Amino acid sequence: MKEPHSIGPGRIIRRKKDGSLEYLRDDLTIEEPLEIRIGNKTLATTMRTPGHDDELAAGFVVSEAIVRDRSAIAEISANGDNRVVVSLAEGVNVKLNTAQRFGTISSSCGLCGKTSIDEIRQNFPAIAPATVRIDIETLLSLPEKLRTAQSDFARTGGIHAAGIFDLNGTAKTVREDIGRHNAVDKAIGRAFLDRQLPLNRSILLVSGRASFEIMQKALSAGIPIVASVSAPSTLAVNFARESNQTLIGFLRPPSFNIYSHIERVILEAS
Amino acid sequence: MKEPHSIGPGRIIRRKKDGSLEYLRDDLTIEEPLEIRIGNKTLATTMRTPGHDDELAAGFVVSEAIVRDRSAIAEISANGDNRVVVSLAEGVNVKLNTAQRFGTISSSCGLCGKTSIDEIRQNFPAIAPATVRIDIETLLSLPEKLRTAQSDFARTGGIHAAGIFDLNGTAKTVREDIGRHNAVDKAIGRAFLDRQLPLNRSILLVSGRASFEIMQKALSAGIPIVASVSAPSTLAVNFARESNQTLIGFLRPPSFNIYSHIERVILEAS
Repeated sequence: MKEPHSIGPGRIIRRKKDGSLEYLRDDLTIEEPLEIRIGNKTLATTMRTPGHDDELAAGFVVSEAIVRDRSAIAEISANGDNRVVVSLAEGVNVKLNTAQRFGTISSSCGLCGKTSIDEIRQNFPAIAPATVRIDIETLLSLPEKLRTAQSDFARTGGIHAAGIFDLNGTAKTVREDIGRHNAVDKAIGRAFLDRQLPLNRSILLVSGRASFEIMQKALSAGIPIVASVSAPSTLAVNFARESNQTLIGFLRPPSFNIYSHIERVILEAS
Repeated sequence: MKEPHSIGPGRIIRRKKDGSLEYLRDDLTIEEPLEIRIGNKTLATTMRTPGHDDELAAGFVVSEAIVRDRSAIAEISANGDNRVVVSLAEGVNVKLNTAQRFGTISSSCGLCGKTSIDEIRQNFPAIAPATVRIDIETLLSLPEKLRTAQSDFARTGGIHAAGIFDLNGTAKTVREDIGRHNAVDKAIGRAFLDRQLPLNRSILLVSGRASFEIMQKALSAGIPIVASVSAPSTLAVNFARESNQTLIGFLRPPSFNIYSHIERVILEAS
């Protein structure tokens, strides 16, 4: 090919392994703002990958402790215009305190706009010390199942995935987004809309790091086990220990780390 | 070893490749809040990895367009108590508008607390269409140099690095943080404190994704070339094209992608 001198819109130049250059279509993950409203009030504007906007809004209001019951929501309308409106059921009111005004949320951030560390924490009840357990083989099978279920990750490497699995390792909902917290909101939002909360017999697997806000979102849905293919943050580990959540990190078969509440992992073969 | 039944504080359990389990010390990257003040006014509270807090504060005020000249700052005092105070020089005042009040910033977010997308953008001047160029061999050498210069990344996988290199590929400043935007702030802040801005003959390499806020921070320091080992976001690419910045993504030798302003990359051997 001739040496490229400029890059047109929607195009990139790639250096291949053999050192040659080629023009390619720019297939980056789309990142656009979504305004989430409750009635006529703007709750937040989040940078997200378009799609499943109703689920994203549902998961957001649940994990921010703004709405707790499915019956509180009459309708969620997403018209593809980068705005989603949550309409409350008749007679339902939500009081938004300062901790629930957000502003603009980047795709990489799930707790933006809060004015102090204390405001981040929502005081969801801890997970009950129940008998829910997962065996190692099931745990090790999850990353491949997540990859199989997602479409765009392999292509761009710029999208996160969140999957909700049952204790047998069957994928129930897998969602993708440029923001890992959005992917989790979409997956939890789907379950909420389908009246499946609490997900107290489920595992959440995220493709990125396990951060504080991911653990809190899982807790808001009652999920007892969270696994991540990458590192957890120190705040995530502390939160998991206090919330009675099992946190698994660096889930890269055949290896993984357990950071909290190992009692939910069946270590020996049956 | 005996089967583990609980995980004490500061400990994790690791499943090794051979299937056996072991207790390990929990060496996660530390994540603590840092309050950044200008005089007696709180500017932001950011989740960061302790260390180089003065540089972090300096880079933050520069990349948020709050301070432009080194002479405007009399002193930055960081006492290791999760608070850093920027003292302005006599006679210097900064007016903070609503876009410059932040609240709490998560380690994964560099543009939190802004109340609209428009407020994110700081209107730094675009990079001049100068003759600064980098050759491919130098570019391909950067990721290994960044890894060599950083200590914690390999151990925990949970820390980001940002390196400022000259056009010969020599590392000038490498900083690490659990938040990629903090790592960039620290590296730029060091250069600002040393009166080296604009860095118009430098390359910034980041270990994570290239997001909009990374590109804007680079622009605030006058950096013409930004490289990332991972994917850029669509907003980052659009910003780079408008700001006359060269943006390289997926820099994984021998491959990389060029998303904007290829004219700064010397494609043929000399």
